[in-house]
Amino acid sequence: MKHNLKLYNSINKRLEPFRPIQADFVGIYLCGPTVYSSPHLGHTRGALTVDLLVRWFKYEGLKVRYVRNITDVGHLTNDADIDASGEDKLSKKANLEKLEPMEIAQKYYNEYDQAISKLGILKPDIEPLASGHIIEQIEMIKKIISEGMAYQKNGSVYFDIEAYNKKYNYGVLSGRKLEDMIAGAGEERRTLERQDEKKNSFDFALWKKADKSHIMQWPSPWGNGFPGWHLECSAMSKKYLGERFDIHFGGMDLLFPHHECEIAQCQAAHKQHPVNYWLHNNMITINGKKMARSLNNGILVNELYKGNNALLEKPFDPMVLRFFLLQAHYRSTIDFSNEALKAAEKGYDRLVKTYNLLIHETQSAENSVHKINFEEWEKNLFDAFAEDLNTPMVLALLFEAAKWINQIIIGKWQLNETDLERLKKIFILFFGELLGLQVKELEQIKNSKEKEIMGILIEIRKNAKEHKNYALADEIRTELEQEGIKLIDTKSGTSYEIS
Amino acid sequence: MKHNLKLYNSINKRLEPFRPIQADFVGIYLCGPTVYSSPHLGHTRGALTVDLLVRWFKYEGLKVRYVRNITDVGHLTNDADIDASGEDKLSKKANLEKLEPMEIAQKYYNEYDQAISKLGILKPDIEPLASGHIIEQIEMIKKIISEGMAYQKNGSVYFDIEAYNKKYNYGVLSGRKLEDMIAGAGEERRTLERQDEKKNSFDFALWKKADKSHIMQWPSPWGNGFPGWHLECSAMSKKYLGERFDIHFGGMDLLFPHHECEIAQCQAAHKQHPVNYWLHNNMITINGKKMARSLNNGILVNELYKGNNALLEKPFDPMVLRFFLLQAHYRSTIDFSNEALKAAEKGYDRLVKTYNLLIHETQSAENSVHKINFEEWEKNLFDAFAEDLNTPMVLALLFEAAKWINQIIIGKWQLNETDLERLKKIFILFFGELLGLQVKELEQIKNSKEKEIMGILIEIRKNAKEHKNYALADEIRTELEQEGIKLIDTKSGTSYEIS
Repeated sequence: MKHNLKLYNSINKRLEPFRPIQADFVGIYLCGPTVYSSPHLGHTRGALTVDLLVRWFKYEGLKVRYVRNITDVGHLTNDADIDASGEDKLSKKANLEKLEPMEIAQKYYNEYDQAISKLGILKPDIEPLASGHIIEQIEMIKKIISEGMAYQKNGSVYFDIEAYNKKYNYGVLSGRKLEDMIAGAGEERRTLERQDEKKNSFDFALWKKADKSHIMQWPSPWGNGFPGWHLECSAMSKKYLGERFDIHFGGMDLLFPHHECEIAQCQAAHKQHPVNYWLHNNMITINGKKMARSLNNGILVNELYKGNNALLEKPFDPMVLRFFLLQAHYRSTIDFSNEALKAAEKGYDRLVKTYNLLIHETQSAENSVHKINFEEWEKNLFDAFAEDLNTPMVLALLFEAAKWINQIIIGKWQLNETDLERLKKIFILFFGELLGLQVKELEQIKNSKEKEIMGILIEIRKNAKEHKNYALADEIRTELEQEGIKLIDTKSGTSYEIS
Repeated sequence: MKHNLKLYNSINKRLEPFRPIQADFVGIYLCGPTVYSSPHLGHTRGALTVDLLVRWFKYEGLKVRYVRNITDVGHLTNDADIDASGEDKLSKKANLEKLEPMEIAQKYYNEYDQAISKLGILKPDIEPLASGHIIEQIEMIKKIISEGMAYQKNGSVYFDIEAYNKKYNYGVLSGRKLEDMIAGAGEERRTLERQDEKKNSFDFALWKKADKSHIMQWPSPWGNGFPGWHLECSAMSKKYLGERFDIHFGGMDLLFPHHECEIAQCQAAHKQHPVNYWLHNNMITINGKKMARSLNNGILVNELYKGNNALLEKPFDPMVLRFFLLQAHYRSTIDFSNEALKAAEKGYDRLVKTYNLLIHETQSAENSVHKINFEEWEKNLFDAFAEDLNTPMVLALLFEAAKWINQIIIGKWQLNETDLERLKKIFILFFGELLGLQVKELEQIKNSKEKEIMGILIEIRKNAKEHKNYALADEIRTELEQEGIKLIDTKSGTSYEIS
């Protein structure tokens, strides 16, 4: 690695220099979506942040193995997720929609995949399904039982936190203490004793017995059932990244209990802490409030793209959403509002314009006349990215270049070929390759004859002016303006801008 | 169903009227790709044909459950696929590329998915992985063993064709007779006796023992190993479609032994034949020869799109490939050559032009003056599609419409509003909805300002002509022609065509 990446490690609550376990290789795990409903804005942030990390590591020449799971076996976080009929969320949704659960999973996975891909997020290297790793989960439960840290009851298996805590420390990530949990659960503990299979209310299911009406179930040494949610991530990260790997990423809402339980499961089964760097992204709020189904203020990703949600004034391009997310550091909350999105749209458009001017409109001069400190600018960009992915700072530094390019376009500054190439190279590296922003318009123009036809119109206008046919020249300008196309006359000729 | 679909059932070797097991519901299984290399032309035909079937059933108002599996556990057709080191193809590729096998599978699955999606092929409802259904496969093996139709040897399990054939009939699909197979294998049988674990050379593996160096393996009642290839389709079709379902589709090269083995496995485990309609697509040849790795004449789908294969003179649009495949009946061989693809390109372009003229350039008249027999044309289209998906005939009938539309454009015929709407409706139904052809150009024009700018240019030219400024009018025509844009003056105004 050429640059010193620092990452905020949630477990030590500090910025730490990143050192991979194996030189030139990095393993990353991200808790992916539960595919029983359409992806909402909250799904985008973790996937986007890992995308930035992956892009960085690849640029740095590391081989990356990035695993993002798909939760397709319900989402059993606690007993409250199983209703009276014994169904989990995914099975229930399947009954509602009268589909096979795997049809639900496939449908919403496809939606997620498409919505996320439009954001320019690269695919993970492995995208394992929880339902596809039942054997691995069963094997892991067997190990935990053999370590005396899980117990079987009526065909279900629970993780025994008290037993675990005698040897290890439950709460290393979240900072919660078992004593406090026991004290807090005191009343609940007595009430539950008669109705619950669990020894303690804070124990969690590794395997749940399924009755015959339960659609998703598999045979196991404890009878037919299905695995608990926490277990899949431990089993799949171990299978594809090993018993100890570099980076585990997830939303802050998953830190407790999900990631705490993952640690306990892995520690119990493999006798070591599974992860070197625990990374967590903060939440997206909406108009200052938490996004939640109960508040009815959730926005689906596709609704944002199409503008079909009462909370939205208009549709927004996926790249505007990407820019919006990049404007905040991943560990800060980010507040969604129409105004914030419209501001992001302006910012993104300005950067795209800068890109287009730089790539298509600038010309090198014999000698350089400018006030750009390339060394400093480049260093600042790398430092910002490497400082726990400080994307707002990277964007600010790219906007610096917007000013410079303006100076060049109006002819006040000039860059020789070496300088111009350097400016282009660094700008494209950060704008496109590392931040993953795309210039949508360019692609579209390329596929149509727009540019060629505009060239003819501009030529006709120029000739008209030369022959003092100002009526025709003005007509062309006016007609184009009515179509939202603005002509820009500069020293080097006429270009145009589409609003 | 409003129309009587007939399908050629390979098992009865005749066209049969299609009757679903459950009214208004149809279950379809297609043997999907083995994801250890990039998708080639041969991968497109089965997926495309099932796409046509699915589109038809949906149009007919049936609920479809379409399952297309992904083979990600190697492709163990026979012992020859396991080399001396005991590896299967997928593991071997993983070693070659130094990747985790699931990274290989994910990589090539992504490639397949993208290549196939570009062809306008709708996603299946469930796309199950073989590696994700090991438990289901183990359970099925247990059943077959308990029926006395499989035997264990040194940690592997083989299907016992002789035992099976005592109760059932091995060879119902392919027409092969066990007696002939025994006679044919006579010499081999004696030779193998000492070195093979199998009782008969034609027995096949349900489960193969894996030694420690084998990357992909799972625990089972017979020790660590991995399932045989034939088994996955039986286990997954049973899980998602039931013990007997409507349609099983696959390439003709899979009829024997793969589908024959599927039948034997299902019959042994579930005591019934699994499928009502066995459908098989024929092969794509290349310049008259079989496509094969050994002949080094395979063309990858993405090579075709990009034109980067020595056998290709130029790149071809995915829709041209779709059109090319639709030109032949799925049960005929189809020969690939540059000439055939270029002819398909012309045909596709002509149909797209017809579509564009019909949708954008025709205007209804007060009275109808034409020689179109709508009833007959519509009936012929539906009959052709329903006659075992006779797509060449459907295309021929759409080209009929090209002639009619020409008559309308040049003003010889005219259609009143009802007739014009009817023509549009039927054309769009077959061209877009049922054949799944897309009009790519249109989409691109929509996303640029090309049309608006052309409108201004055409207006300027019109005014120039009116003011007798023929120099300007001619200049516009000439300049546009240099960009490959041809102006077409008709009664109703000027349109344009991009070559």
